[in-house]
Amino acid sequence: MSNAQHSLDGLVEALRRLPGVGQKSAQRMAYHLLQHDRDGARQLSRALGQAADHILHCQRCHTFTETPVCSICLDETRDASLLCVLESPADQAALERTGSYRGYYFVLMGRVSPLDGIGAQDIGVAQLLERAADGKVEEVILATSFTAEGEATAHVLSQALKARGLRATRLARGVPVGSELEYVDLGTIAHALVDRR
Amino acid sequence: MSNAQHSLDGLVEALRRLPGVGQKSAQRMAYHLLQHDRDGARQLSRALGQAADHILHCQRCHTFTETPVCSICLDETRDASLLCVLESPADQAALERTGSYRGYYFVLMGRVSPLDGIGAQDIGVAQLLERAADGKVEEVILATSFTAEGEATAHVLSQALKARGLRATRLARGVPVGSELEYVDLGTIAHALVDRR
Ligand SMILES: [Zn+2]
Ligand SMILES: [Zn+2]
Repeated sequence: MSNAQHSLDGLVEALRRLPGVGQKSAQRMAYHLLQHDRDGARQLSRALGQAADHILHCQRCHTFTETPVCSICLDETRDASLLCVLESPADQAALERTGSYRGYYFVLMGRVSPLDGIGAQDIGVAQLLERAADGKVEEVILATSFTAEGEATAHVLSQALKARGLRATRLARGVPVGSELEYVDLGTIAHALVDRR
Repeated sequence: MSNAQHSLDGLVEALRRLPGVGQKSAQRMAYHLLQHDRDGARQLSRALGQAADHILHCQRCHTFTETPVCSICLDETRDASLLCVLESPADQAALERTGSYRGYYFVLMGRVSPLDGIGAQDIGVAQLLERAADGKVEEVILATSFTAEGEATAHVLSQALKARGLRATRLARGVPVGSELEYVDLGTIAHALVDRR
């Protein structure tokens, strides 16, 4: 319809790659940025390029990092006998904010989901077993979500860890059943941590 | 929480500038792109930069274009006696797809909205009056949406055009009341165009 179509169509198409964004939303976003927020468009462009090129997965805990090993894994003042397993960096950030955990982490970057064809191997169970077998870890705290998939993930990991002679605990059920960890208030998380079983 | 936070926080913050995207959605989008679609992140980065730097507003009709005047305005085979006024490039694209209109366009890039403090001057009524007074335009077809704001916009423009001795028509009410033009089926739009009053 006009010679702006190439750039505009390209932008709408690219915005559709964002999860939960369909054709109409993408069009609305593109118009908004072009009409009212060019600076926002340039800022987002830079942030995407920067993140895509520089963010790696930590070699020890798998969370997002810009260095081969993340700052938490490099922090030698932490308690090496504890390893907390989480589904995502958002869950990790929530637990960090409670200020009640001083061990290390392993971030699965996912959860077991048979319906989506995501099995234990896809969330790095082999790497977790290797990480947990460093001779220092005495307890692996399974802090996956208290959803069906999170529970299934905890179950699979618990079985695998126990088969290797490693002690696996689960956050106490103070965390409301059916909820995702990152939405839970910090006091509840802290309490559930103390009550782990 | 880790040294990826700077790039990651920057990405989440930039994604929040998209309309309708809050903190949780932005985080989800960032994780998705970093975890599953780095190519998508790079594609979106390029598309945003390209669009922000190269898309202009047509000097004659105000729609998005990459040249000073858009291809439709440059097309001399069109009927210069007709000027159709629309709210957005999406509405313009819908009307073009009907294949039943061969005049020129003026795209308001908005609509009168007293609640949002958007008045007639903000949608370029002065530029429209100047464009419509080129000595060739015989009829200005007001094809704003059949919503309260679209009707208010049409009313304001109609008054201003008639005060200058210009003929203003409105799409027929074949377009379902309460709907936005871009969502209407093409046959209905074509019929409403013939029935304009
Ligand atoms: Zn790490
Ligand atoms: Zn034009």
